Amino acid sequence: MAESDKMWALVFNGPGQRSWEQRPKPRVQAPTDAVVKITKTTICGTDLHILKGDVPAVQKGRILGHEGVGVIDSVGEAVGKFKKGDRVLISCITSDGRCGYCRRAMYSHCEGGGWVLGHLIDGTQAEYVRIPFADTSLYAIPKGADEEALVMLSDILPTGYECGVLNGEIQPGDSVAIVGAGPIGLATLLTAQFFSPSELIVVDLDDHRLEVAAKFGATQRINSGKEDAVAKILALTGNRGVDVAIEAVGVPQTFDLCQRMISPGGRIANIGVHGKSVELRLQDLWIKNITLRTRLVDTESTPLLLKTVTAGKVKPGMLISHRFKMNEMMKAYDTFGNAQKEQAMKVIISAD
Amino acid sequence: MAESDKMWALVFNGPGQRSWEQRPKPRVQAPTDAVVKITKTTICGTDLHILKGDVPAVQKGRILGHEGVGVIDSVGEAVGKFKKGDRVLISCITSDGRCGYCRRAMYSHCEGGGWVLGHLIDGTQAEYVRIPFADTSLYAIPKGADEEALVMLSDILPTGYECGVLNGEIQPGDSVAIVGAGPIGLATLLTAQFFSPSELIVVDLDDHRLEVAAKFGATQRINSGKEDAVAKILALTGNRGVDVAIEAVGVPQTFDLCQRMISPGGRIANIGVHGKSVELRLQDLWIKNITLRTRLVDTESTPLLLKTVTAGKVKPGMLISHRFKMNEMMKAYDTFGNAQKEQAMKVIISAD
Amino acid sequence: MAESDKMWALVFNGPGQRSWEQRPKPRVQAPTDAVVKITKTTICGTDLHILKGDVPAVQKGRILGHEGVGVIDSVGEAVGKFKKGDRVLISCITSDGRCGYCRRAMYSHCEGGGWVLGHLIDGTQAEYVRIPFADTSLYAIPKGADEEALVMLSDILPTGYECGVLNGEIQPGDSVAIVGAGPIGLATLLTAQFFSPSELIVVDLDDHRLEVAAKFGATQRINSGKEDAVAKILALTGNRGVDVAIEAVGVPQTFDLCQRMISPGGRIANIGVHGKSVELRLQDLWIKNITLRTRLVDTESTPLLLKTVTAGKVKPGMLISHRFKMNEMMKAYDTFGNAQKEQAMKVIISAD
Amino acid sequence: MAESDKMWALVFNGPGQRSWEQRPKPRVQAPTDAVVKITKTTICGTDLHILKGDVPAVQKGRILGHEGVGVIDSVGEAVGKFKKGDRVLISCITSDGRCGYCRRAMYSHCEGGGWVLGHLIDGTQAEYVRIPFADTSLYAIPKGADEEALVMLSDILPTGYECGVLNGEIQPGDSVAIVGAGPIGLATLLTAQFFSPSELIVVDLDDHRLEVAAKFGATQRINSGKEDAVAKILALTGNRGVDVAIEAVGVPQTFDLCQRMISPGGRIANIGVHGKSVELRLQDLWIKNITLRTRLVDTESTPLLLKTVTAGKVKPGMLISHRFKMNEMMKAYDTFGNAQKEQAMKVIISAD
Repeated sequence: MAESDKMWALVFNGPGQRSWEQRPKPRVQAPTDAVVKITKTTICGTDLHILKGDVPAVQKGRILGHEGVGVIDSVGEAVGKFKKGDRVLISCITSDGRCGYCRRAMYSHCEGGGWVLGHLIDGTQAEYVRIPFADTSLYAIPKGADEEALVMLSDILPTGYECGVLNGEIQPGDSVAIVGAGPIGLATLLTAQFFSPSELIVVDLDDHRLEVAAKFGATQRINSGKEDAVAKILALTGNRGVDVAIEAVGVPQTFDLCQRMISPGGRIANIGVHGKSVELRLQDLWIKNITLRTRLVDTESTPLLLKTVTAGKVKPGMLISHRFKMNEMMKAYDTFGNAQKEQAMKVIISAD
Repeated sequence: MAESDKMWALVFNGPGQRSWEQRPKPRVQAPTDAVVKITKTTICGTDLHILKGDVPAVQKGRILGHEGVGVIDSVGEAVGKFKKGDRVLISCITSDGRCGYCRRAMYSHCEGGGWVLGHLIDGTQAEYVRIPFADTSLYAIPKGADEEALVMLSDILPTGYECGVLNGEIQPGDSVAIVGAGPIGLATLLTAQFFSPSELIVVDLDDHRLEVAAKFGATQRINSGKEDAVAKILALTGNRGVDVAIEAVGVPQTFDLCQRMISPGGRIANIGVHGKSVELRLQDLWIKNITLRTRLVDTESTPLLLKTVTAGKVKPGMLISHRFKMNEMMKAYDTFGNAQKEQAMKVIISAD
Repeated sequence: MAESDKMWALVFNGPGQRSWEQRPKPRVQAPTDAVVKITKTTICGTDLHILKGDVPAVQKGRILGHEGVGVIDSVGEAVGKFKKGDRVLISCITSDGRCGYCRRAMYSHCEGGGWVLGHLIDGTQAEYVRIPFADTSLYAIPKGADEEALVMLSDILPTGYECGVLNGEIQPGDSVAIVGAGPIGLATLLTAQFFSPSELIVVDLDDHRLEVAAKFGATQRINSGKEDAVAKILALTGNRGVDVAIEAVGVPQTFDLCQRMISPGGRIANIGVHGKSVELRLQDLWIKNITLRTRLVDTESTPLLLKTVTAGKVKPGMLISHRFKMNEMMKAYDTFGNAQKEQAMKVIISAD
Repeated sequence: MAESDKMWALVFNGPGQRSWEQRPKPRVQAPTDAVVKITKTTICGTDLHILKGDVPAVQKGRILGHEGVGVIDSVGEAVGKFKKGDRVLISCITSDGRCGYCRRAMYSHCEGGGWVLGHLIDGTQAEYVRIPFADTSLYAIPKGADEEALVMLSDILPTGYECGVLNGEIQPGDSVAIVGAGPIGLATLLTAQFFSPSELIVVDLDDHRLEVAAKFGATQRINSGKEDAVAKILALTGNRGVDVAIEAVGVPQTFDLCQRMISPGGRIANIGVHGKSVELRLQDLWIKNITLRTRLVDTESTPLLLKTVTAGKVKPGMLISHRFKMNEMMKAYDTFGNAQKEQAMKVIISAD
């Protein structure tokens, strides 16, 4: 293999083990494939879960990463929307565009794709990545766009918007509580403002994150380690509870807060990735006319989010706390893996 | 008190104790009240719960019943839609028409009403009943209507339709499972057919009920005491699960069946009255894009149901298994209270 | 009649004739009535139409006005939500709360009310007004609210929001054109921003109004008397047309602009009051998957708008250009009737 | 060219001229193409319009037809869902599955497809047809399905369902009027019953068609040549008008009936292909809270319709009045082109 056929990549070597090493550069395998040269990528909380060994489907040797922007390097002959040199946004969800789920815009459950990047096939934390079904899994980047900000559209912004905001059916004038002010809770906070709720209450255990939330538009912040979040929310809402409660953590305790603070007729949106079951207080909720929704992000909102970012209606670049060069990938992981101490939200890793 | 100021009524005398006794005839108390002479009433599973002592808000001396049809006997001066002699359907939910919940058609949570009949005020298992907010809690009966069938519109048919069918968002071509083939499950089965689902699978432990379900339109019946309901439903749906699962029992086991048989993108509608919490398998569901809804019946669909019954699109009279005279009220309770042995669904109790 | 039984009022005396004169103070007539002492009112374009003789249902001697805020003076015995001294917002639509239309939240077509104030019964441009069905036609004013701004919630803000924004189904990222920058077009412009559209293009013939529109949030302004509005909008939208076109004038020419600028899949919302038919280009539109909606304001959004105003999400006080005392009512009409010259938008007329 | 490279086809030779002649058999041109051997096809009213010269985009030499079922003969290398020998339903709308419109399920406006078959490229009235974007433009036929009935799913059934029933938002209990009882009106009548309306009134000028409509489920039939359709509908609906009016003809007179019979809050769905503008009575409608929708069929409902047909919820085979062999194509056109005299609805043309 010639030197030019190699690239650098972040490789999962089993639980607790990652390395920045040389790997063969990917090639187009199917007529619907594209190969993208990565210009910017990032690290997701899910990547840390994989490194802990929590996602057994990820095999040793897998290149991680499911977010990023880049430039088309080559395309298969059935690719119709993109050509070499086009700048593209990579969706964390691969969509074949033809299965029953894709035709219903539920790309997360695509029978030929879904979440595969950095999971079942090699991902974006590398110099190059192969993207199957390129026409339905990549998005053209508008000229002059802020590409750093667009990296947030690979996963975190559509996740907050689809799983939190849309699933919570936020309406103008609503009272909304977001439980969890990590990157995903903050992405939810940013996009919740598309619908002009009256109250945006953020609950977390970390005062720094709550301060950030206040800067991002929270109207109230509650440190649930220091005060009774449910009692305070009932007090703030005339004892009625919130119209929308959004779970953005993924543990039973935070889910429980959500079900205890919801008003009659309210909506609970679960974003958190849960590792175990929760207790659902159906003895209280059966009579409350509530709706509870779950969702793996479909990224069907990406075109809409691109328009709102371009129009300046939301500034996802606010989520970026640290920046690295690509050859600092290992250091970027060190920082992001130590988010509380480093006060890290999202990190940007750039090719140049 | 003159004899003409008295009436007969079914009275709750504390857990396990009921009597058919004379009570003062009710009078208009507020300008928005009406007094209705009952022509037909029925007994609800909830009345049995009250008799068991499960509903502590019901005080000794309360006249039970929240369903029925009758004739207006007198009205307060602010009542504009009804006059003495009008035939009316009584809604199990009293709506003041003016609170925030009523203006959103969520009458179940009406701040001046809600479920009060036979609960917080005297009910319909009597010769006369006082109905607060008559203009927004009674419905005119169309001429020539089958009044027996309309008794099913006080509670059971809107409950099946709103809490089951609408909350499950049944669409043409859907696969639907109804867990529980008691009267409420059967009412759901009848009204589910408004939306032409492809599969209507009914699950119960009682073969007789399953036979009735087949007559009422079930396309598949599963006795979950004899076979693995989830396994069978997965087999019937290409291993995908159902689009809609409707819980019509109210115990953790049946809720669990629902969450295990639901397909990605599916809807779970809970109708059952739950006395304790359930385990929600969020470790499986977080990724499945499901919607779970609860609801106390609002009876906002009553005008629609009246039209469909009048047009012959649904025949709720099919739910009636036994008929009694009003002075046989105690016997009617004996029969309904022994539903499995008596093969009772809904009983009709007529004034004449 | 004692002096204290009289009040001052603006009276319609036939086409072209109005006077500020003494009239009997109204009294509660039905148990559901309230009499409200007006603290602030305003004048609507509709009042000018009535004065021109365009609304033949308005009889000589009628007190005009259907907007305002005030204080409860007396209530009928069936009124449950308000008592003497309560501060209230008067809705331009009277809702009996009990007819079929009200139960569907379509109060505009209320069988016992609808638009009656200053039309079929005496209105709000007076010291006192009788409000039928007070419980469902008045709204409590939150403590500390800006009552001037709330006068905009009687009619103009819900009209812009319901007939324009909701009927246009504005979504985040949409391109929206509002044709007409009079008070109602501006109210639409303000509330359209609840949903974060990417483009808010305003079209008018008056440069001053377009300047105001730019201050109120328009992203583009087009003087359709000076340039080809349709051509410019097609150029701005990649030749596709806008997602939402809102007609806020009421003449065939402006409707025609809307139908010519709409994109495939787009929504046209008509707010304008039309006096004659328009030509619908169905030969072009049948294939374009468009939706066209009309609506008389229902004011069902008033509770939501109250919450957004209280939370500072919208500032309807921006619509106020002039202020008068109540005894300057005739002068207020002179100013508002000469809106272009006076650069008048909405005028506030205060009791003290 | 060898004999085996030829096939028989119905060719448009300019206005008024058609022939059944030999043409080269189509081949796969792009990796996403499939070639289908036609087993059954039909003729659409649109084909007659083309023959009249009403659709200038159709060039001389074009093979007509956009409906049919068949067997896969060959596929391009990017086709993933189908292989030689698979039985397929051909959609009248070709969808590339990747453009902005397709991602919103608005396939009718697909940037790479849309209505192209028998219009801009050769169509289905032939022994073989090339289908671009096969994965997103063909549907697998379930085993044992009635393939004759499925020919109705290429165009007419989804057109009636999407443009009429869904655009009219038919709900249980609604009163619905369908103006026009030709094949498309009848397809609408069949699928309207998915939603259990109370009244299904059919209006036409032809008594035979009205008789057929009665057999297909119409609850009322009105010959608008003999009686005043609007007056009769107002009488049938308590002077309110219908909830849903569906235009299934395409001329100003029938559109006018629809707008005059609609109730406040009602929906008008236009299916008809209009050649000229219509007068919209906005002076009456602005105040009536109505919705008017247009749509070119997207065929996004095809999977749903396949399920309802398979489950026996609708029997589109009822629309078939005549059957021919493929070599009788010219005779089939003679019959269908003379529909009133021949009492023809849909004709089936079979390969064997």
